[in-house]
Amino acid sequence: MTAPLKSIEGTGDIAATMGDIGRAARAVARVLALASPAQKDRALGLMAAAVRAHSARILAANADDVADARAGGLSGAVLDRLALDDSRVEGIAVAIEAVRALADPVGTVTESWTRPNGMIIERVRVPLGVIGIIYESRPNVTADAGALCLKSGNAAILRGGSDSTRSSRAIHAALQQGLREGGLPEAAIQLVPTRDRAAVGLMLTGLDGNLDVIVPRGGKSLVARVQSDARVPVFAHLEGVVHVYIDKAASLDMAKTIVLNAKMRRTGVCGAAETLLVDRAVAATQLKPLIEMLIDAGCEIRGDKAVQAVDARVKQASEEDWSTEYLDAIIAAKVVDGVDAAIAHIERYGSHHTDAIVTDDAATAEKFLAQVDSAIVLHNASTQFADGGEFGFGAEIGIATGRLHARGPVGVDQLTTFKYRIRGSGQIRP
Amino acid sequence: MTAPLKSIEGTGDIAATMGDIGRAARAVARVLALASPAQKDRALGLMAAAVRAHSARILAANADDVADARAGGLSGAVLDRLALDDSRVEGIAVAIEAVRALADPVGTVTESWTRPNGMIIERVRVPLGVIGIIYESRPNVTADAGALCLKSGNAAILRGGSDSTRSSRAIHAALQQGLREGGLPEAAIQLVPTRDRAAVGLMLTGLDGNLDVIVPRGGKSLVARVQSDARVPVFAHLEGVVHVYIDKAASLDMAKTIVLNAKMRRTGVCGAAETLLVDRAVAATQLKPLIEMLIDAGCEIRGDKAVQAVDARVKQASEEDWSTEYLDAIIAAKVVDGVDAAIAHIERYGSHHTDAIVTDDAATAEKFLAQVDSAIVLHNASTQFADGGEFGFGAEIGIATGRLHARGPVGVDQLTTFKYRIRGSGQIRP
Repeated sequence: MTAPLKSIEGTGDIAATMGDIGRAARAVARVLALASPAQKDRALGLMAAAVRAHSARILAANADDVADARAGGLSGAVLDRLALDDSRVEGIAVAIEAVRALADPVGTVTESWTRPNGMIIERVRVPLGVIGIIYESRPNVTADAGALCLKSGNAAILRGGSDSTRSSRAIHAALQQGLREGGLPEAAIQLVPTRDRAAVGLMLTGLDGNLDVIVPRGGKSLVARVQSDARVPVFAHLEGVVHVYIDKAASLDMAKTIVLNAKMRRTGVCGAAETLLVDRAVAATQLKPLIEMLIDAGCEIRGDKAVQAVDARVKQASEEDWSTEYLDAIIAAKVVDGVDAAIAHIERYGSHHTDAIVTDDAATAEKFLAQVDSAIVLHNASTQFADGGEFGFGAEIGIATGRLHARGPVGVDQLTTFKYRIRGSGQIRP
Repeated sequence: MTAPLKSIEGTGDIAATMGDIGRAARAVARVLALASPAQKDRALGLMAAAVRAHSARILAANADDVADARAGGLSGAVLDRLALDDSRVEGIAVAIEAVRALADPVGTVTESWTRPNGMIIERVRVPLGVIGIIYESRPNVTADAGALCLKSGNAAILRGGSDSTRSSRAIHAALQQGLREGGLPEAAIQLVPTRDRAAVGLMLTGLDGNLDVIVPRGGKSLVARVQSDARVPVFAHLEGVVHVYIDKAASLDMAKTIVLNAKMRRTGVCGAAETLLVDRAVAATQLKPLIEMLIDAGCEIRGDKAVQAVDARVKQASEEDWSTEYLDAIIAAKVVDGVDAAIAHIERYGSHHTDAIVTDDAATAEKFLAQVDSAIVLHNASTQFADGGEFGFGAEIGIATGRLHARGPVGVDQLTTFKYRIRGSGQIRP
């Protein structure tokens, strides 16, 4: 049994504690920005090794967290996400190694041009600075987020869910050992020591300018609170009300394959389809096989009248269904008057996350891709590709639907900003 | 004499008026995002023509603004910026035509790659949405900002200074005529009709989610207020505390040329040098000629003891001088112990805007370029190149020192965001 939480809880002035954390992060951010790829990779390797070496301690801490959570009435998916075992701890180490293996974004020249006067202007990636991650009781996020921030040269301030306090601390201790052994400052990855929710409020205010970006990772209520209250930029998406539109020029086989995958491969991911739109021009032939396929696969259908007409098992959709993210084996289904009506529906009810069209008509596809204003738009591919790994970004810290800076999957490149580096030979401005 | 302001002042509920403006902007943003380059360019050409055609009306309105401002006690630079004449009106039209001539950023594919499964992923520029510009009494900004937003496919909400109300309205009427004749919605460029300052406060809250970015254009107090109160992203810089560091390996000729240009070419621009740092290793030989050159050019020097020692006319710098943006023929000057001390000084006192090193030592230059955390860092070139035109961006709406999205000069490319467009052939996620 690890220590009872009370005795390890930080005491005293939370504002002072958080102020110290912010200043410490800012102070090390410059060291991290200038750390070489080899230095960061060495530390990441040592962090993974330390997670493995601390495995017994991490599992003991987690067992206490799980026992408390169960006693407190937690169950189901929440408890499952909290619980660790040997293979999950190994998974945490492997994930750190995967981040280590990514290309280092810092210092990459993304654009370069020469001015008529001979000056060479380069746009070069630099870290954002200090990133705050606010997450729920998923211990692995402690390591994932810490590793991604370190790889991209940023200082991290982690605030995990209170049910995973001991687990997060045990993992964090391993990360700090890796940083120490790798010659990088421990303050590169800080874990907020208090479970007091006031700490979150202080992070949302930006810690006196010492926090550059906040990334919330968790359910809708967490993201909603962060988006509404944060005074610093937020990389997040509130929800993925994801559409698949089956155009009159779609092949039925491809439509079936994509709809089944987009809805049912995993129903709990943000790229899972939540609404099926079918072109009225082919509703008579294509709707029934699509709906039957989904029902056979165990999916509940909530449809408009036209969809209800093809199968008695289709429930009636309410107005609310069109903007609902089920994250479950449920789909809303509607017949629409062609691609324009599909686009209008998506713009009205969607969440600007990910939307797809299935069609063999190139012009219709281009129209959809141009007019649907979502972070990710797809033609003839499953919406479940909305994922940093599937984009080739390696690990991601999440998916953003905000319009600025990071949109879509947020990987290490998206955790950087840029500066302009100009090389001259004595040029002055006339 | 145009109408007295009272009679043309919007009456009624400001919150309702601003809410209507926000909704109207959002409603047309999609039309603008999908407008073709030819459509936008046609409207821009017609806008320039309308400004010329409305010249007499614009000048009459401006004469009334100037008379009121003078009666109210305005004078000097502020009054000069407000006043228009034939050539300035022509300049406004020419500036619109310059924006028209820029490459259209919307739809540009900035990255493209193919995944192992054959999916092609493109990152493509799309407009930000609705941009709010809050500016002081400079009538030309009405046209500049409106044209830049239109070119980049964004809806604009303009809130000009109250001393230029009639001038801005007259210019805005010309812009609307151009939009109308070009077949684009007049709400593409809206001018806030009330001089009530409550309108600014409402813009800072984001107009119920209908404002995506705010760009303040004006003095420090305006920018400071917007940065501190805005609940939406802001593209701006508060000040340019710009440094030139003369390294021991600098050629004296190049140092003199660059320092003179960086400080004295124009003292009122944000890229003008405000602090001169000279390496102690060459202070004995290089400091005196640099200081004498500046004094001869009419520049006041505020130096530390070492700088005061070389010329009796050097005033003593206070601690405050190191972080002061003079925007005048004054420079702070200090002797530092090499490039590391120069970098430390810049990081402590600078504003992360633009900083330069003069040296013939490549390694020292690289160190400076890597370690100075400013939007623009230069080697052997004048800091007065901190300008969108000098970067080759064409017109700019300003320079940003924030870390996210737009940093450095903000031209039409920086007024866009992006989305991912994925083209498949039936791919599903395993």
